[in-house]
Parts: sequence; C-alpha cells; structure tokens
Amino acid sequence: VRAVLIDRAPEIPVIELFSDAPAQDPRSAAYLLAGYFRELPRGTVFLCVVDPGVGGDRRPVIVQVEDRWFVGPDNGLFHAVCMRTPEVRCWEILWRPERLSMSFHGRDLFAPVAAGIATGVHPERRELSSRACRRAGWPDDLPAVIYVDHYGNAITGLRASAVPPRATLRVGDALLHQARTFTEVAAGQGFWYENSSGLVELAVNRGRADRVLHASVGTQITVV
Amino acid sequence: VRAVLIDRAPEIPVIELFSDAPAQDPRSAAYLLAGYFRELPRGTVFLCVVDPGVGGDRRPVIVQVEDRWFVGPDNGLFHAVCMRTPEVRCWEILWRPERLSMSFHGRDLFAPVAAGIATGVHPERRELSSRACRRAGWPDDLPAVIYVDHYGNAITGLRASAVPPRATLRVGDALLHQARTFTEVAAGQGFWYENSSGLVELAVNRGRADRVLHASVGTQITVV
Amino acid sequence: VRAVLIDRAPEIPVIELFSDAPAQDPRSAAYLLAGYFRELPRGTVFLCVVDPGVGGDRRPVIVQVEDRWFVGPDNGLFHAVCMRTPEVRCWEILWRPERLSMSFHGRDLFAPVAAGIATGVHPERRELSSRACRRAGWPDDLPAVIYVDHYGNAITGLRASAVPPRATLRVGDALLHQARTFTEVAAGQGFWYENSSGLVELAVNRGRADRVLHASVGTQITVV
Repeated sequence: VRAVLIDRAPEIPVIELFSDAPAQDPRSAAYLLAGYFRELPRGTVFLCVVDPGVGGDRRPVIVQVEDRWFVGPDNGLFHAVCMRTPEVRCWEILWRPERLSMSFHGRDLFAPVAAGIATGVHPERRELSSRACRRAGWPDDLPAVIYVDHYGNAITGLRASAVPPRATLRVGDALLHQARTFTEVAAGQGFWYENSSGLVELAVNRGRADRVLHASVGTQITVV
Repeated sequence: VRAVLIDRAPEIPVIELFSDAPAQDPRSAAYLLAGYFRELPRGTVFLCVVDPGVGGDRRPVIVQVEDRWFVGPDNGLFHAVCMRTPEVRCWEILWRPERLSMSFHGRDLFAPVAAGIATGVHPERRELSSRACRRAGWPDDLPAVIYVDHYGNAITGLRASAVPPRATLRVGDALLHQARTFTEVAAGQGFWYENSSGLVELAVNRGRADRVLHASVGTQITVV
Repeated sequence: VRAVLIDRAPEIPVIELFSDAPAQDPRSAAYLLAGYFRELPRGTVFLCVVDPGVGGDRRPVIVQVEDRWFVGPDNGLFHAVCMRTPEVRCWEILWRPERLSMSFHGRDLFAPVAAGIATGVHPERRELSSRACRRAGWPDDLPAVIYVDHYGNAITGLRASAVPPRATLRVGDALLHQARTFTEVAAGQGFWYENSSGLVELAVNRGRADRVLHASVGTQITVV
C-alpha cells in the first residue's frame, strides 16, 4: 500500500499488484486505491484483485486514467479513481483465456490482460461510457476507516484536503485533534494526521489506534 | 501459493521460492506443492524449504519432473510431485558450500544449487532411484486440510478429479455440498469447490471456513 | 530478515529494504541489522526505515562500512554496525526532495538517496565524525530478545561468539542449554543455538519459544 519507489528506466513497464486489502470489500478498496495510485509512475498498469464476486456476473474491465491503466472486476473498485479525474476511459474485456477457473480471475484473466497492456498489446474489448465504472450513491470521500495497517494505524477514505485543517474528528466516543507527526503528541495519545498519501489517518503515538479507538474497517468518522 | 503469472522472456530463468507453508509439515506441503507446480512455466526451478529436520541426517536432493526442477530436503516434500508424474529423476546433492550453517540450508545450500541449475550449472551430485523421494504409506491424495489461506479458506490434499463431482464431504460434524463459486451459496454457508489449482477447498461465502468448520492443518475430511 | 541470496551479475546494484522490524524500536533493530548485513554482497545499499521519530529532528544519514552503504534516520539504527567495524564513514544528507511528507521519509527521502547511491549518484551531503552514528551507553552486544520470527523463535542481540560455547542462559524462570540444531533436543524442549547469522537464538523444538518462554522483544537474557 505504501509503495517505496526508486528510479527506473522509463522503458520498463511497471505492473502494480493491488490485491485483496481490505479483504472482500471493494468499496473500501476503491478509496484506498484512489488515495495512492498517483504515487506510481505514469504508464503503470494496476492489476486489481479485490473480487468477492468472482465467478458471478460482474464484468471484467479496463480503466484508463491519465496515462495509468487499471485492470480488474467492475464491482465499484474503480469508482473513486474515476470520480476524481476528468479524463477517464472504460472498456469491458471480451477476451477470455483458454482456461478460466471459477475462482481466480486474477491469475487467469486479469494478469494476462495487464501483462499485455504493459507491453502494448490490448485484448479484445468493448468501450463503455466513461461513467460506467462509477457507483450511484457512493460519496466523493468516504468518512470511514478503509484500512488498518500493520502498526494499527487506521486509514480513512477522507482526503485531508476535504476536511478543515484543524477539524476535530469523532470516532466512537473519542475526539481526535489534528497533529502533523507522531512526535507532536504524547505517548499513548490519539490524533489524526494527513498521511503520506494525502488521506486522513487515525493514529496513536507509540500505540495502536485500532485497539485504543476500537476502530476497524468500516468504523464511521464524523467531522465535528 | 497462488502465483500470478505474467508473460516473460523465455530466456529468463524463474526461481520459485516454496518456503515454510504450512510450517514444519513436509507431508502437507508435499500435496500443496503437487497441486500447484504446473502453474509455473517449464524450466522453473523450485527452491523448496520446508525443513524441520535441518541439521539432521535427511539428504539434500534435486528432483527433475517434466522439465521442472525441485531443490530441497529429502523429507517427503517431493512425494506427491513424484507420484503423479511418470518421468522423474532424483539426485542427492554432494556439493557443500564453504560455510554451511546448522539451521539454514535454504540460504547456504539449496539457494546456490537452485541458482546454479537456473543458469545451467549443476552441482556435484549422485543419481538416485526415480522412486527415492517417495514415502511408503503416503496416499495418492491426502484427505485432510493442508493449508489455510489468509481468508480462512481451507485447502485440502484431495484433487477435485479424485472426488465424485457432487460428493458430500464431512468435516467434523458438518456436511458440505459442492458449489462452483462463492456466489452460488448464501452468506455464511459452508461448501466445497474445486479451487484454481484443481484441489478440493473448503470455504464459507463471506466468512472464514477455518472458524466456522473448526478446520486447521491436519483436520480430516471424509467423502460421504 | 533471513535473506536468501542467489548469484547475480556484479554490475546489478542490490538495494536491500530493512524496514520496520522490530516495529518502532531502533535499538533492537540496530543489533539485528548488525547481525545480518554481511550476508548481503559488497556494494549493497541498505535502505533502512525503522523511524518512529519521522517528522521530528533526527538527522537523515548515510553510513559507509566496508563497501556497503546504509541510508536512514540517525536514531541509533546504525550503532552496532558502526561499533563492529573499524572503517566507517558517516554523512548527513542535506538534499531534500520537492515533496517531503511528514510521515514517510522512507519513500520521499531515503529511497531516492539509496537509488542514487546504487547508481553512483550521491546527494548533497556533509561528512560527520566516524563516530557520529554511535550511541553512548549502548553495549557491544545486547542481552535481550530483539526479534521474534514467524515461528516464534526469539533472536537476541548477543553474538554467539560473545558467549561461552556451553553457557547456560536464563530467560525468566527458564534455564536454557545450548544445542546445535532443533533435532538435537526433544520435542517441546527449549534451548539456545547459534543461528544462521551468528546470533544467539532461543528456540523450542516443534514449538514456539515466544509462548513457552514468555519471550518478546525486550525480554532480558542472563548468561549464567
């Protein structure tokens, strides 16, 4: 999620695997993906596999946004990426591999398509409306926890730019003030800050925000 | 375990690390390895480190099966791979590195051998019987859970092709029917299906099979 | 942590990511890094991100030790590497990227510097004393658990060469004798051994040392 990038030769294609985190939750994953896709260089192909409906009737799609490519299931996963950029193109993937398992389209369908795009070969496809991959009723920013990292920090679907700089956030019974860094607050104290991807993140200095704040994926956040 | 493959230049050797999952259990690992090794391209060298007996007297071996290579300890790990293919060759590795730690032959012995094979350089070795790496009494298919994945799905050592298509499986007190995909059953309901590697896998739609079925590595499965 | 190395073309730079394990604990991490950095080839650039003080006033530094490079925060992380080698050079990194987030210098500052060094381009920097990255009062060897691995083995900050070969170690109420390998002791029995990086490691044959010995990062070890 927090990719560390180094310089690379521009002719080498980058395929970024965005796999099932948070698990089985395309809506939360959509806001996480939108929060960090610009960290990867132009030309990157995102192979996206958050796909609880695999084997059902959701379409396989390709989305092109500002010279970056996304390949995956049309289950809302690309909603926020599409919402936040004016130039979007969407296609349904019509090509099918010889062997298509019922449960792992990431390997059988999406990975070969992503590899093709990375090397300039596009599969048989059908263009859709540029709004095809959005979901009605899903907000611009999601005021909820969308991911809890290894250290217990709780990333939300709110962009920091969408919240007043000194806003207080309510999470359950707790009120959180803003800080710029972990070292600005006392050990054990909760706060929120703009994380390195520009999202509002709930944290506790030298502690686990998930435990202290009883926060998990889906926990609602209120801007007071 | 569920490798995602992309096209690659055929002159680039592939070394696949098959490390300690399930931990310290070469028998379960043997059936997992046999279930998925054909997903990797011909020419792949499998560096296999499920090695609870490291430092003891098990032999280090090389196994060649259908133009794929396996390097690791002779502790049964290659039993199912050898059982299921007619053309097998086995060698004991005689070469030893200058420094051989007592506890990490994966780094000191197996990795250099695998790197050599991938680049066409074979170590000093002694050919064994083609049946040398099999284990007496181990079955063709293992009716037990051999791996629980991140989502709680329980992979078994039974190939789906070895079970009647509409068989009912008993796991503890539960009876599981077959489904093709997660979306065919109600949320919270258990079932079994042929997974993307051809193995029988126990699952619960939008739930964790390990918790619902009290299943862990070693749990027995009965075909009713 | 236990890197598996294969042969490589010498002209390809190796960048090794040493990230936050053990989490938020530069002192423990320092002894872990010192225990294994020589396993990586000469020329390796270590990108080190154990950085609980990110956004505070610790300096970003480069350390050169015997033709290996280290890039990261000056929070003690390089103490043991510097202590154990006679030829050390240290620099403060003066260069700053256009965008420097408050919370992720690993991505924004250290990774570009490491990539530059790996390709022969050094950032704007200022040489420091060769002792600049040591910490007063930190010992040569740390008699405490510094890392617990996936299997529950507890790695300590003691080099085996700094302990008498047949020493007995006390961990809480338990007394541990030395063994060469797991298979030398009975199942369920605790022991210590020289691990593959030369450090004293606490283990239980076919069990988890962390649970059996109630050991976690920071647990003190006494040589009896």
